[in-house]
Amino acid sequence: MAATTSPVPETAPPADLAQLRTLLDGEHAEIRNLCRAWLSLPENAPRPDLPLEEHRAQVLKWARELADAGETARGFPSEFGGRDQVGGSVAGFETLAFGDLSLLVKCGVQFGLFGGAVLHLGTRKHHERYLSDITSLRLPGCFAMTETGHGSNVQQLGTTATYDDATGEFIINTPDDAARKDYIGNAARDGRMAAVFAQLSVGGEERGVHALLVPLRDEDGNALPGVRIEDCGAKLGLDGVDNGRLWFDQVRVPRDNLLDRYATVDEHGVYTSPIESSTKRFFTMLGTLIMGRVSVCGASISATKVAQAIAIRHAESRRQFGPPGEEEVVLMDYRTHQRRLLIPLAKTYALHFAQEELVARLHRVFTSDDDLERERRELETLAAGLKAVATWHATDTIQECREACGGMGYLKGNRFAALKADTDVFTTFEGDNTVLLQLAAKNLLTDFRDQLGELDPLGTATFFARQGYEVVAEKSAMREILTRLADDLLPGRDDQEDLSTRAVQLELLRWRADHIKAGVARRLKGGIDAGRDPFAVLLDVQDHLIAASRAYVDCVVLEQFAAAVERCADPGSRWLLDRLCDLYALSTIEAERGWFQEHGRLSSTRSKATIKAVNALCGVLRPHAEGLVEAFGVPETALGDAEPVAEARPAG
Amino acid sequence: MAATTSPVPETAPPADLAQLRTLLDGEHAEIRNLCRAWLSLPENAPRPDLPLEEHRAQVLKWARELADAGETARGFPSEFGGRDQVGGSVAGFETLAFGDLSLLVKCGVQFGLFGGAVLHLGTRKHHERYLSDITSLRLPGCFAMTETGHGSNVQQLGTTATYDDATGEFIINTPDDAARKDYIGNAARDGRMAAVFAQLSVGGEERGVHALLVPLRDEDGNALPGVRIEDCGAKLGLDGVDNGRLWFDQVRVPRDNLLDRYATVDEHGVYTSPIESSTKRFFTMLGTLIMGRVSVCGASISATKVAQAIAIRHAESRRQFGPPGEEEVVLMDYRTHQRRLLIPLAKTYALHFAQEELVARLHRVFTSDDDLERERRELETLAAGLKAVATWHATDTIQECREACGGMGYLKGNRFAALKADTDVFTTFEGDNTVLLQLAAKNLLTDFRDQLGELDPLGTATFFARQGYEVVAEKSAMREILTRLADDLLPGRDDQEDLSTRAVQLELLRWRADHIKAGVARRLKGGIDAGRDPFAVLLDVQDHLIAASRAYVDCVVLEQFAAAVERCADPGSRWLLDRLCDLYALSTIEAERGWFQEHGRLSSTRSKATIKAVNALCGVLRPHAEGLVEAFGVPETALGDAEPVAEARPAG
Repeated sequence: MAATTSPVPETAPPADLAQLRTLLDGEHAEIRNLCRAWLSLPENAPRPDLPLEEHRAQVLKWARELADAGETARGFPSEFGGRDQVGGSVAGFETLAFGDLSLLVKCGVQFGLFGGAVLHLGTRKHHERYLSDITSLRLPGCFAMTETGHGSNVQQLGTTATYDDATGEFIINTPDDAARKDYIGNAARDGRMAAVFAQLSVGGEERGVHALLVPLRDEDGNALPGVRIEDCGAKLGLDGVDNGRLWFDQVRVPRDNLLDRYATVDEHGVYTSPIESSTKRFFTMLGTLIMGRVSVCGASISATKVAQAIAIRHAESRRQFGPPGEEEVVLMDYRTHQRRLLIPLAKTYALHFAQEELVARLHRVFTSDDDLERERRELETLAAGLKAVATWHATDTIQECREACGGMGYLKGNRFAALKADTDVFTTFEGDNTVLLQLAAKNLLTDFRDQLGELDPLGTATFFARQGYEVVAEKSAMREILTRLADDLLPGRDDQEDLSTRAVQLELLRWRADHIKAGVARRLKGGIDAGRDPFAVLLDVQDHLIAASRAYVDCVVLEQFAAAVERCADPGSRWLLDRLCDLYALSTIEAERGWFQEHGRLSSTRSKATIKAVNALCGVLRPHAEGLVEAFGVPETALGDAEPVAEARPAG
Repeated sequence: MAATTSPVPETAPPADLAQLRTLLDGEHAEIRNLCRAWLSLPENAPRPDLPLEEHRAQVLKWARELADAGETARGFPSEFGGRDQVGGSVAGFETLAFGDLSLLVKCGVQFGLFGGAVLHLGTRKHHERYLSDITSLRLPGCFAMTETGHGSNVQQLGTTATYDDATGEFIINTPDDAARKDYIGNAARDGRMAAVFAQLSVGGEERGVHALLVPLRDEDGNALPGVRIEDCGAKLGLDGVDNGRLWFDQVRVPRDNLLDRYATVDEHGVYTSPIESSTKRFFTMLGTLIMGRVSVCGASISATKVAQAIAIRHAESRRQFGPPGEEEVVLMDYRTHQRRLLIPLAKTYALHFAQEELVARLHRVFTSDDDLERERRELETLAAGLKAVATWHATDTIQECREACGGMGYLKGNRFAALKADTDVFTTFEGDNTVLLQLAAKNLLTDFRDQLGELDPLGTATFFARQGYEVVAEKSAMREILTRLADDLLPGRDDQEDLSTRAVQLELLRWRADHIKAGVARRLKGGIDAGRDPFAVLLDVQDHLIAASRAYVDCVVLEQFAAAVERCADPGSRWLLDRLCDLYALSTIEAERGWFQEHGRLSSTRSKATIKAVNALCGVLRPHAEGLVEAFGVPETALGDAEPVAEARPAG
């Protein structure tokens, strides 16, 4: 260890892996174990060999099996056949993500997106009519939001829904090819109905984006008149999901098909909404769909765990090179291998606990009778930020694990092909990560949810020009920063900090998050005060905004990991988690040491010491690597058919 | 721009893209254009829809077509039907990499690896008997080196070749499943013969790894007696290549089948070699196979260009969000998008010119009659380092480009699926990147190629303990560093450096490369002097060794890019390249700014200014993005069927 950090105790009480697993599984252990048992049946194992159409058929069959067992209704209200288990249903989804991710996404589309739209955007009449058919998969449906011309900027999509006073119907129409619905899950093969997002027009007045239920196919699976359906065909991954394109040619649906929780049209053709501003209404509607984002976040963490379990097992059995004349050593003994596998493993643990907190907040917000305005916004911020960070972590880590398994990792039987291909889209669906980080930054930059709700993510700059900047600046860490800057100039201060102390780690990450947030606010305000075009100012600070969100997420993730360490009862597991939490904190600081030095929070000596500390922690954790992935409880069936041949030979 | 750097001129003379393309194509423009023309035929376009067996058949058909046209013989000596175009054949290979990468790898296996083994490890009798059949593809063959139990550590592989005095034959045998040949291209379907690497035993004496030609199949394609062949089956990518496994059960081949350039067995069963040490002999043999590594390096750069051409086109047409009430803006206008696409683009250009230099060195070494010992080692060092850096750049950048294309990038028709999957293995084949960077570091650490040739990469530490450390230390930058350190402590020095000056950029990267190299040498020596186990010392500094290689590559790459700027005749292109070279240099410094601050070479102010300078350069280069990828000359057929719908709408 570095001279300026406390020595890490290198011996530890033995960890009880069962207790560590119990801690990881948290309050939804029972549901997680149910899913594990289901995945452990040989017939439910991921199958790398299925051609596209067979894969789609297999996925539907699996989904029906889960629906028949009642598993897919958990998250829905008990009065409609569910069990009110919002958090539990996400935990189940996370566990299912150990297996075939096509099944996961198929379920996400049907029960999460389609079911969620009906539940959250619809009213009692919709719930009574559709919910039990949806959760039982008697009514396969789609969530038809994305268009070819508009992905992230949903507010500007082109599909129209025009109210016809004469018949009391809505006319759904696709004006051009840019407005065709694209990449819609369940559309190419199975969907009978879709929640279609369209620009609503009532009595000649534009009311913005609303969702309506539009039937797509008849009982025999034929497209209904006016509905054109095209198969998106083979994709980079997730081929068990039947994505398709939809066009509507003046399709008529009854007035009741408007999902009208936030806006309704009465029998006289009068539009009313409890939310006056159409932009705020739009963001309120979108906000209810957050469960999909939270679920994808959790799924990406699970997929990462699978890859890490495979790679660490391989690294413990595969021997290569070694001291002259002696037996070759296992890959896990190499420092480079420890760095490439253990640093991401620490982050996966950290993200796991942050995800647990996110799900708990989701459950609170969605099961409470109160309108938890502030909690809802915080949930949105964390969900956006954590989804981006966790899905990028999945992409990076699965790749690293594949490479760490060499040629073996390249064979299709070994899960990496599917893990890479299937999770790839996680970074851009349920919100493109770059857009999500800007959304999170917007939320971070103000407490005034009401005013900002009016603005799309790119309207933030204008907002700062017009209202409330001063308050933001006051509430931000500006004052604190000034005090600290003076502090930092005192020599020696930095060197007295002990980076192996949790409080110091937390303080560093919090300081960074606050400092970046204040910096962005200052730049936005400065640009606009100077009379520059707000949009140009925003483009200028865009990478800074994203840095603000990342720093915020790093901070929350460490807080949650630290809290998890505190509640761990088994001394051995606690010791392990504590070291792992150090590794997460210090490797995060190591990665950002350029920034910390720029801002006077790390001296160059301290910065170098951080690298040494990370290496030392890798050495300390190395003997526990296999136990740490075992605790994830990934079913054997999900680990592929890797059977590394571990013939020991002299090293040379 | 930052206050302390010179302003970049924001207006430029118009660039002549044809001249830029000519500069990029270099001396092998004609061969490159031939390949482009072939790839531009619709029937030669990559086909994302082929099932495995059809894909394999198509690839063989394409390869035969190229062979019939004489294209695949270019790199071979003219006396055996080739054209002595070593560099030209790599340039052709690089261009072919715009298309189906399975075809590329199939050609690489047949003409590069199998043909290369016969050419470089065999003698005249082998050349006369086999070369024209190999280059014409009448004799499809394999390069059977890798085993299930031994990938990177080839020296310890398990297959045996025992000389039988009685019959004058070698007996090839696979002692156990760990010694089966694995992932062997051309083995599962087409190969008739293999260059098999085996432990040679003559007269009861072990002689180390040698290569022998072993027939695999008869004219009808049936496996010969004693040869067992298994199909590796579907892979993560490259499914048009038939990888397989090989077992040999006491297979007899004539004495002449030993590829005996570096060691022979005469008719009396006497083994002789011009190279006394078996380890040195082994590394000499491996060294001749460097062309494969150089080719993969070039191919990864080409695949990166394809991804960047697709993503930048998309970014120029796809509109999303924008200033309130105005038209949406194209993605390329966003700062985040510029950073994610233009910084890697600058690096691709930089790697392109470094690769050009690498190929020129390869050509010199392989066509010279002299034994260019030093040049050969420098070639090996650069090839190992550049291959690692370029293939990782490909993996990262193709992923970034996929994400930058959103859902469209996820459809199979749009090349990203194939680009990702096919290039994935580049980071671990033709030398695992982590192992290669250690090999490069070993070469960097000493001029004493002869002594070090005796050692596997992990024997380096022992070497330093035993011989010659002092000389290394003297030759390294130690002395210079001490002088400079004093210099650095003078206030103001750092701030007077102008980071937009090429010489300053070069000096920074050179200083870093030298400093890290000297640091590793010091740690190795210190550990061993303290009496520690050399292998343990080596594990300790392993990540430092890798950092040394990376720093060396960064430096060479910038040098080559800078040289290319100097030789660009068209003022407009030169201006562009100059800015792009700045972006490469400054973004590299930005990425390493933690290190530069730790070592007193960037003040915090300067470090922050680097980030601003990178952002400013992104803005300056943004209008030229499309032209810069156009100059790569990627055939339209290789760009997939992306047709982004660019319907302009008001931004909101």
